[in-house]
Amino acid sequence: MMADWIDLNSDLGESFGPWTMGEDETMLGIVSSANIACGGHASDPETMFETLEMARDNGVIIGAHPGYNDREGFGRRVIPMAPDEIGRMCAAQIGALQGIAALAGAKVDYVKAHGALANYAAKTREVADAYVAAVRAIDPDLAILAISGTELEHAAKAAGAPVASEIFADRGYTPEGQLVPRGTPGAMIHDAAEAAARLVSFMDSRMMPVVGGDPIKLDAHSICVHGDGPAAVAMAREIRARLEAEGITIRSFVQ
Amino acid sequence: MMADWIDLNSDLGESFGPWTMGEDETMLGIVSSANIACGGHASDPETMFETLEMARDNGVIIGAHPGYNDREGFGRRVIPMAPDEIGRMCAAQIGALQGIAALAGAKVDYVKAHGALANYAAKTREVADAYVAAVRAIDPDLAILAISGTELEHAAKAAGAPVASEIFADRGYTPEGQLVPRGTPGAMIHDAAEAAARLVSFMDSRMMPVVGGDPIKLDAHSICVHGDGPAAVAMAREIRARLEAEGITIRSFVQ
Amino acid sequence: MMADWIDLNSDLGESFGPWTMGEDETMLGIVSSANIACGGHASDPETMFETLEMARDNGVIIGAHPGYNDREGFGRRVIPMAPDEIGRMCAAQIGALQGIAALAGAKVDYVKAHGALANYAAKTREVADAYVAAVRAIDPDLAILAISGTELEHAAKAAGAPVASEIFADRGYTPEGQLVPRGTPGAMIHDAAEAAARLVSFMDSRMMPVVGGDPIKLDAHSICVHGDGPAAVAMAREIRARLEAEGITIRSFVQ
Amino acid sequence: MMADWIDLNSDLGESFGPWTMGEDETMLGIVSSANIACGGHASDPETMFETLEMARDNGVIIGAHPGYNDREGFGRRVIPMAPDEIGRMCAAQIGALQGIAALAGAKVDYVKAHGALANYAAKTREVADAYVAAVRAIDPDLAILAISGTELEHAAKAAGAPVASEIFADRGYTPEGQLVPRGTPGAMIHDAAEAAARLVSFMDSRMMPVVGGDPIKLDAHSICVHGDGPAAVAMAREIRARLEAEGITIRSFVQ
Repeated sequence: MMADWIDLNSDLGESFGPWTMGEDETMLGIVSSANIACGGHASDPETMFETLEMARDNGVIIGAHPGYNDREGFGRRVIPMAPDEIGRMCAAQIGALQGIAALAGAKVDYVKAHGALANYAAKTREVADAYVAAVRAIDPDLAILAISGTELEHAAKAAGAPVASEIFADRGYTPEGQLVPRGTPGAMIHDAAEAAARLVSFMDSRMMPVVGGDPIKLDAHSICVHGDGPAAVAMAREIRARLEAEGITIRSFVQ
Repeated sequence: MMADWIDLNSDLGESFGPWTMGEDETMLGIVSSANIACGGHASDPETMFETLEMARDNGVIIGAHPGYNDREGFGRRVIPMAPDEIGRMCAAQIGALQGIAALAGAKVDYVKAHGALANYAAKTREVADAYVAAVRAIDPDLAILAISGTELEHAAKAAGAPVASEIFADRGYTPEGQLVPRGTPGAMIHDAAEAAARLVSFMDSRMMPVVGGDPIKLDAHSICVHGDGPAAVAMAREIRARLEAEGITIRSFVQ
Repeated sequence: MMADWIDLNSDLGESFGPWTMGEDETMLGIVSSANIACGGHASDPETMFETLEMARDNGVIIGAHPGYNDREGFGRRVIPMAPDEIGRMCAAQIGALQGIAALAGAKVDYVKAHGALANYAAKTREVADAYVAAVRAIDPDLAILAISGTELEHAAKAAGAPVASEIFADRGYTPEGQLVPRGTPGAMIHDAAEAAARLVSFMDSRMMPVVGGDPIKLDAHSICVHGDGPAAVAMAREIRARLEAEGITIRSFVQ
Repeated sequence: MMADWIDLNSDLGESFGPWTMGEDETMLGIVSSANIACGGHASDPETMFETLEMARDNGVIIGAHPGYNDREGFGRRVIPMAPDEIGRMCAAQIGALQGIAALAGAKVDYVKAHGALANYAAKTREVADAYVAAVRAIDPDLAILAISGTELEHAAKAAGAPVASEIFADRGYTPEGQLVPRGTPGAMIHDAAEAAARLVSFMDSRMMPVVGGDPIKLDAHSICVHGDGPAAVAMAREIRARLEAEGITIRSFVQ
């Protein structure tokens, strides 16, 4: 039997000062969850406020999207920090978004880490633990959105946190359930129809095709889609349309 | 009859990265309220965390101390911003401190603006209104610490916010209740004993001596003292000792 | 007799980290002078390097384009600074661009101030003097690109600096030779053909049409065109084509 | 026969905005070379200008002291960057200091890398090559101050750059000529008299005592001393006094 719902999440609110990134307004009509940057790797109070207002108006569930305090590197570079320092940095960023959300009449319901920070927390238990501890100190009801099978998911579950797991719409998987590294054949799925078909099939079987092996079982409450550029937006739109055509409800993992 | 309590507040947590400012540890043994910088004009997550822990351990009440996002200018320069932009900036900073306070097992109970932002909100009602709205959106129980008679105090009272008013230990006043501008005779009180004596007298009479006129009535729940340098710390200590010797309890305006 | 040459200048190199601004590659095929941001209001070492390389490859003359150290406000906000502080800030930015130009095998030949800094130096002689002094301390051969009739032009001439004056392709003028303020009728010229026709006529007569009066005489070695968005690029291209069709050479004021 | 001169260098100009670091004025009366921060890991245009003026007035030779653009981490954290990106970053910083030096009537004569950048260039030839290329593109007469035996020294010599090598006044050495890692017995020399005696002996023999072995031959044109705190300043002063008492001239490796 086909599962009857799935979440679509996307990174939003990543403009900064005079610089615009992404088609946030359009994407907020497609996704059910918005990972909103918190002023670390991107964003500023004005961008946060506008994105929060748009998410609220679209009924989109809001997540904080903390990343390294490194706008020049867009949070894609590991800045050497102790796990506890990472926890403090994330607490400040999540709190900042919550502060502006209060002004916007919006609410932060979950947290998803960005870029190099997400990779680090996925692989390193001490980092994952510090991150989860920061989230839970702020609000134990905040859900943690993580990749299935990562240290971050384990840490969140061990702490008793609400956890949701995500898969990527445009990435190939290895037989071990890891992402095929960028630059390797099968790493990226560029065709919107193909990406949508994979996800429809996944929703039916919960099995994910892999490069070089038989499909594997993956756990997923959410699909990560991108909004940077017309092709990405078109893929997100196609995925939503095809899933809905199969009777699957697009809704957040937060109720 | 002499009033039986007053608060002592000081700006703390103003170090940044490798740079230390102020004698926070010592001051936290003297004051009853700590205005902690939020990463705008000063501070960073590590500094906030350490200062919050020390304040908590000393039983010192914690205030958020937002300022312009301008570390180079230490929040002493007016950065042109619309009132609503100021509100959003302050919401992000207060939220950031709250996020780290949650990790430190501490609580933010009030807000006091810093430097050029404080002056602007004191004089300009629209700015004061936006600032008060941001504070109240985050938590209507947050008290606002303001200078008596300012637009900020009026805005806070009009909004129904808990308000406390402060006087300065080391500054002279004009007959209109304003601070004598720096550089003008009588602007600064450098002698600790003199400053303490003025405040003892003020606590008894609620009348403040002024330059060029008769003492005036001032409203005050808190005395602002400084902690930058040995002389400032000595003055703060002397003030506390003299007030306590008169039977006045040093305690926060937040109960 | 029609003047036989004019410069076209444009603000370029205003991307930052992951954020792109402007169509620099296209514009470098249209203009003869590139005002390259120096890491103050915009840019970073990578952006500077790429822009310098492209300018060099296109034979476009390079100017440093210093602005307030305020990326979030894109240099459009006046940050309160003493004139000498402004001079020091500009010296650091011009030097930074020169350092990277050396690596790129390129050379900085002139300086044009950006945004709020340009406006401030245009109106305030002390600021203009400090700015000119900084430019000349670095290299007395650096030309200063200024608006005709401003304090900056006067300061540069008084200091004996090479000066070039500019007019704006898309702005209306008052009878006093000032720009019609944005938001006022006649402030902006949106039609590419109209803008080009005005400039062709100006090149013939050296008289500029104004709003509410007879054409006035203006001094100009350069026309400022914009590159942000398809319409701006199209206008720049149209202006170049029409001027060249009239036999006017597009070349820098630096030889 | 005892060598008749040696340089003393120290990291200076590391204040930032309202935050003071080091006793620069005192140190500029002790050292012969000043490594001045360039706005990356520390400093700002005002600090650079003041430090440059003081160095000039004291006849102290000036070096640029580039570091990662990471004030919060004080340049002690490796920010992941490609070697060419590091070269561009250094070019911008050296250029910035040169720009302000021009205003201060001072001249930059050498370059010494800071913190994590220095360590990375010491160990990694590609980084050293990019760094040396940036320095030489700016000015082939700029000397490079490096630790003897490092990849940076090799890269500088291979490029034909003027090179000077340095030893540390307060650090123990291994038999391989490396610094004993901090936290290991013998890593730090805290006693000023002991440090001075070692250096006097070294100047006579050019042999450096090591932990766990016989003294080794080290090449040195300069001794690095610190200026952060009274003990560091006292050690620097003692070293200078003892060396001068032995007839050794304290002067820069730049003539």
